[in-house]
Amino acid sequence: MIGRLNHVAIAVPDLAQAASLYRDTLGAKVSDPVPQPKHGVTVVFVELPNTKIELLHPLGEASPIAGYLERNPSGGIHHVCYEVDDILAARDQMKAKGARVLGDGNPKIGAHNKPVLFLHPKDFLGTLVELEQA
Amino acid sequence: MIGRLNHVAIAVPDLAQAASLYRDTLGAKVSDPVPQPKHGVTVVFVELPNTKIELLHPLGEASPIAGYLERNPSGGIHHVCYEVDDILAARDQMKAKGARVLGDGNPKIGAHNKPVLFLHPKDFLGTLVELEQA
Repeated sequence: MIGRLNHVAIAVPDLAQAASLYRDTLGAKVSDPVPQPKHGVTVVFVELPNTKIELLHPLGEASPIAGYLERNPSGGIHHVCYEVDDILAARDQMKAKGARVLGDGNPKIGAHNKPVLFLHPKDFLGTLVELEQA
Repeated sequence: MIGRLNHVAIAVPDLAQAASLYRDTLGAKVSDPVPQPKHGVTVVFVELPNTKIELLHPLGEASPIAGYLERNPSGGIHHVCYEVDDILAARDQMKAKGARVLGDGNPKIGAHNKPVLFLHPKDFLGTLVELEQA
């Protein structure tokens, strides 16, 4: 069912420093910061030949990554995102297998304007997993 | 400098359960377990269309992931691996930029029989980064 690894998301305490690290030290192609107020984050996209790294920094007062950065002040890998063809079929398969979908179980429109769901880290090896309809 | 994301490594407390999760719940193609005694891990490879997920479980008494699993008993993302063309040039660039390379600074032969280095998580956004000469 899951297809491509769409991205790895890294929560970072200082977006300019993180962008510089990926651009100047690791020599990758990085975007300008992209504010995504609906999602409570500002994102710098790191373009690799086969996938993306997304550097996330909190935006606004109810950012979904604020708690993570409080627990991990140096930053860290926040989630991985796998592509699926059909988000509702994926949701139903997760439920049938006993895996928990976060929220009310209905897909939301994600940061790439596509339907997404998040799966419970306790059911996925301590890893927050996002599914995105590709 | 960095090229493809070679893999995302997830440390797991139960390899059979983790393999089943990726195969039966997420519907991915997973390998049989591959013992890598030189590296202190047994690995299940999850083949995605654009990259790999590596599910790691400790093997032997001095596994490099044993401490991580003690701190994270449910598992979690242990490291990301980026490909580079020239591991020594990459090492020198890291040092020139003030980023710490783990160990004695000399590449080791990694789990894919290619030269690798690990970079200090404190210098890379709380993320353990492996560089592998592709």
